[in-house]
Amino acid sequence: MFEVLERDGLGRIGVLDTPHGRVTTPALLPVVNPNRPIIPPDDLRTRFRAEILITNAYILGKGPVRDSVLRQGVHALLGFPGAVMTDSGAFQSHVYGGVDVTNAEVIEFQKKIGSDLGTMLDVFSEPGHDLARASADVDETIRRAKEADDLRGPMALVGAVQGGLHPSLRERCAREVSSLGVSVCAIGGVVPLLESYRFRDLVRVIVASKRGLDPSKPVHLFGAGHPLVFPLAALLGCDLFDSASYAKYARDGRMLFPDGTRHASEIRESGCACPVCVEHPMEEIASKEDLLAAHNLHVCFAAIREVRRAIARGDLWELAERRARAHPALLDALRELRHHNEFLEEFEPVSRRGAMYYVGPETAHRPILHRFRRRLIERYRPPRAAGLVVLPESGRPFSDTYGALVERMMQAADVHAVVKSLWGPVPFELDAMWPMAQSVVPETLDVDALEAAEVFFREWAAGAAYPFGLLWEGSQSLDELRKRAPGPHPVDWNDARIRATADVQFGRGAADALFQGTVSYVVSKANGKIRNVRVDGEHVVSLRAEDGLFTLRSAGARRLHRAFDSPHLRVVVDADSVPFQREGKNVFAKFVREADPAIRPRDEVLVVSPEDDLVAVAQAFMNRREMLAFKRGVAAHVREAVPPPSSAPPR
Amino acid sequence: MFEVLERDGLGRIGVLDTPHGRVTTPALLPVVNPNRPIIPPDDLRTRFRAEILITNAYILGKGPVRDSVLRQGVHALLGFPGAVMTDSGAFQSHVYGGVDVTNAEVIEFQKKIGSDLGTMLDVFSEPGHDLARASADVDETIRRAKEADDLRGPMALVGAVQGGLHPSLRERCAREVSSLGVSVCAIGGVVPLLESYRFRDLVRVIVASKRGLDPSKPVHLFGAGHPLVFPLAALLGCDLFDSASYAKYARDGRMLFPDGTRHASEIRESGCACPVCVEHPMEEIASKEDLLAAHNLHVCFAAIREVRRAIARGDLWELAERRARAHPALLDALRELRHHNEFLEEFEPVSRRGAMYYVGPETAHRPILHRFRRRLIERYRPPRAAGLVVLPESGRPFSDTYGALVERMMQAADVHAVVKSLWGPVPFELDAMWPMAQSVVPETLDVDALEAAEVFFREWAAGAAYPFGLLWEGSQSLDELRKRAPGPHPVDWNDARIRATADVQFGRGAADALFQGTVSYVVSKANGKIRNVRVDGEHVVSLRAEDGLFTLRSAGARRLHRAFDSPHLRVVVDADSVPFQREGKNVFAKFVREADPAIRPRDEVLVVSPEDDLVAVAQAFMNRREMLAFKRGVAAHVREAVPPPSSAPPR
Repeated sequence: MFEVLERDGLGRIGVLDTPHGRVTTPALLPVVNPNRPIIPPDDLRTRFRAEILITNAYILGKGPVRDSVLRQGVHALLGFPGAVMTDSGAFQSHVYGGVDVTNAEVIEFQKKIGSDLGTMLDVFSEPGHDLARASADVDETIRRAKEADDLRGPMALVGAVQGGLHPSLRERCAREVSSLGVSVCAIGGVVPLLESYRFRDLVRVIVASKRGLDPSKPVHLFGAGHPLVFPLAALLGCDLFDSASYAKYARDGRMLFPDGTRHASEIRESGCACPVCVEHPMEEIASKEDLLAAHNLHVCFAAIREVRRAIARGDLWELAERRARAHPALLDALRELRHHNEFLEEFEPVSRRGAMYYVGPETAHRPILHRFRRRLIERYRPPRAAGLVVLPESGRPFSDTYGALVERMMQAADVHAVVKSLWGPVPFELDAMWPMAQSVVPETLDVDALEAAEVFFREWAAGAAYPFGLLWEGSQSLDELRKRAPGPHPVDWNDARIRATADVQFGRGAADALFQGTVSYVVSKANGKIRNVRVDGEHVVSLRAEDGLFTLRSAGARRLHRAFDSPHLRVVVDADSVPFQREGKNVFAKFVREADPAIRPRDEVLVVSPEDDLVAVAQAFMNRREMLAFKRGVAAHVREAVPPPSSAPPR
Repeated sequence: MFEVLERDGLGRIGVLDTPHGRVTTPALLPVVNPNRPIIPPDDLRTRFRAEILITNAYILGKGPVRDSVLRQGVHALLGFPGAVMTDSGAFQSHVYGGVDVTNAEVIEFQKKIGSDLGTMLDVFSEPGHDLARASADVDETIRRAKEADDLRGPMALVGAVQGGLHPSLRERCAREVSSLGVSVCAIGGVVPLLESYRFRDLVRVIVASKRGLDPSKPVHLFGAGHPLVFPLAALLGCDLFDSASYAKYARDGRMLFPDGTRHASEIRESGCACPVCVEHPMEEIASKEDLLAAHNLHVCFAAIREVRRAIARGDLWELAERRARAHPALLDALRELRHHNEFLEEFEPVSRRGAMYYVGPETAHRPILHRFRRRLIERYRPPRAAGLVVLPESGRPFSDTYGALVERMMQAADVHAVVKSLWGPVPFELDAMWPMAQSVVPETLDVDALEAAEVFFREWAAGAAYPFGLLWEGSQSLDELRKRAPGPHPVDWNDARIRATADVQFGRGAADALFQGTVSYVVSKANGKIRNVRVDGEHVVSLRAEDGLFTLRSAGARRLHRAFDSPHLRVVVDADSVPFQREGKNVFAKFVREADPAIRPRDEVLVVSPEDDLVAVAQAFMNRREMLAFKRGVAAHVREAVPPPSSAPPR
């Protein structure tokens, strides 16, 4: 069973339970060649803290240790007490053109040797396979997956996703295979892409597969063992990686680094801090296969830990964007992502703690910004004003001085101000919303980024229900503007800010619902900013300083529940679960019946009974797709139970 | 004494001799607080392989160990057998507003305690100091530098460069101080810039200082101890860095990483491969100052080794470009570099072994490309043809198939083909020249890069002495072009290639000089490409496959020597040195009298006597500025001695 603990992008930190212990993901599975282990499996456990390894059942079954492994089991044979996954021979069929073993035989063999995760024998689709051939590969892979599922008994099964470079086939195969009794879904057939640096194709394959996969199952990217690809693959939701590279490259005298591969003989000094590089001179490292392999493993494990650190911190995007600079083909892969924003956006948390960093023109196309721009078009309504002032991107985060100036200008001229930022148009009232105020950009901007800003702005301006009176782009004098504008205009900017935030966060109409009545504020003594909003004496929402979004309180939840029909903002739980949420307990995914497809991780949600009674207010951890798929883990963290309406219960 | 062994950009791998051993540069000098050493100096030597450390003479002189250090010397006090540099208290004057010690006292004290490198007490220019005040700081710093030079005795002296943010002052101070008897030049007053991430200002300060500095002296960047800045600072020619950060940050519970700083308490797992992070759980690391300091040191030393590796490999630019993505302010600093291309280009080797990688739009502004474009304008003459065909950038390196196609087209239509590449216009004959053919670019290109390509192309086309008959930009049909062109036109492309290469490499007119006579080729059996060019039976030049440039042979050298007046291509050596070069021995910098200012590292050069007799042909290791400054090391590697003219000697 697999449970997700933290997330960022499509990446996730999870735990996978196996008969031989828990595995924290993303995880690296070192490949152990049973006939020639360079690093003893026991060392993998003690020196490298490997919780799981992978070895090859096909090789075990054909090799000299066959009898021995059947007798004592794979764990004893390898001397590894942790989890052991076994591969089936599909990769050997790719290399040698075929294997003399059947799917059923391989499954049986893996059961006999006590594999914790046994892999079906899938049909390796070469990238060059045309649609017809790849389709046949997929049909046969699905057939074998069903067969393997029938035969697996208590063994946890790894189902493979094939389909070559054909997105529709990848998605179909993923959907069919992951709907079976498989514990891990493996994306196969990608080694030829990795070997030829076809990272853009790799992105297409992973995204197409993820579209079809059951999101509650961990995803293994077969044969991806180079630290170069870990951040990007993890960002797209790959949880397990297997590395034969550490050993294979060591045999060729090559060293892995987070930014590429280098021949040991060509470097006099390694710019690496690993124990091998710190404790041994390069000449010794270059001449010893076991030292090379140990270095490679240290680098790979550190790269995986770096990915986990970034997920926990919420800066996996930045890590992937930076690492993409290691090779132009990775940069191409990074640029491919924007074409999948509709899908990627579903999984993107609404905010995180830290600032968003500008890494390059690609940053402007991140799903979080795609979402902001779309919500602006769909949900935001500008306040009434005689005109619009467009402020060019300052290249700096919004400052209080600047803000005060703009505010004075708006009051004097009855205009509304929108910043044409790198991220899209930012109305003045929304400038505290993550990641607008919490972004760090360079002073000199890329032409690409400026052009994108222009495009985003025009797209929005064209569709905005906006009373364009006059337009100012920083070139005309402010006096000119004042002359043409009707003059001093008292705007309640607190009001404008909370209304805009509510509509963008909860949907158009939310502001009307939440703030109907007499509004009052609790403001921060430190900076005068709104902390809590009370309406008719009730605490409706709090405004979080860290991301400029609302935390919903019971009174606010009741208002939104009344104003919006189901399923808007709802997470519908089973009747059995209702009493727990009434006590303030979290919503577990297995009790979720239905949910609003617009819910995103970290969104504020209404927990309701099957009869749509409001039970609690919560912060989502999953999106709808995940809530419905997962049988384990928290779907939403309950903030507070909502007491039943104050009217007396029916007698 | 300082000697440079390898180089890239303005970066260099060197050795600095001290009374306590050799120091390989770029080097990191851990700061040891004598009153509170977190990592014992002996450990710095054994565990971290530190060859040099730095401690503070001001603190030693004021603190409880004053008597002890005066009695036993600083090496014995610290228990460190390697080199010890001491700082003077200038930084303390910045922090506390003043120090109660004079320059003369600090110098005397450092001599008494046996410092290997003693630092003068300079005047710390704050970044906010205006021109008048900073100018006074510089005057006083220069006065004290002279005083320190007078007092230093046998102690090697560190002279400081101040001047705040004023380039003219930095340059003046650098020139004056480095002309004295100082062994190391330190760029001071930059800590406030580092602390506030003003990396662009840092670049301006370093470049302005480097303009004035004697290039034969190692450069210390005072107070730069974060791995974030090492690649960029080393690229600009900083050789020594001192780190108090490792200890200071450890005290605050912070960890250094190549891409930034993080609070240990905020990370559950460190994505680092260092011995500390591999061998200890994060909770333990976070709670122990010595573990944090050791981690920080491992990361810093690895980052310095990484810089040395990149210099040796010739990819320091790529490293700096990648690392700049760690923070938007570093990206601004990277973008500042193009404004200093005239200076940076002087130090840029003409080629390297590996391919050039596209990292981002900044790559197109690298000095190597600035040089290519300038040489194209100044040195290149297009072959006669009826028209010009402009091929749009394919986004891929030039392939042989593509080349053959273009060649057929040119022959059929009597046109000349130029590729409008990202790097600038590339005439077909020069497509094998580094880094044109040896570059790796993404398939999708940045708008910035495309725009730059357009600008570079227009600049060249506007000035090119070109018989523009017709212009084709890929949009018109090739048939149309053929119809308008005068028809089959036999072009000798081997001839065109060697002529264009000769002019661009050696200067306009070189082709006429080198290839006058009957030209024949030795071609590679493997790929049909030119290997050697013979003229009238003499081997004149060889064409290197790796970078598309010529290696000059004696016969070629004689022709160029005849054709070009001094100082063109010359390195003039002292009469004493001539007999050694006649024997094929390398040219040492201390024997160089004069040299062509256009010579760049790895250029082919003519070694001549003071009377301009041609003595040898060599490959330069230094540019003119360096040849004249260095008293140690090889200025040019002699390929072969050129025998005196065959005419009998005068009787």
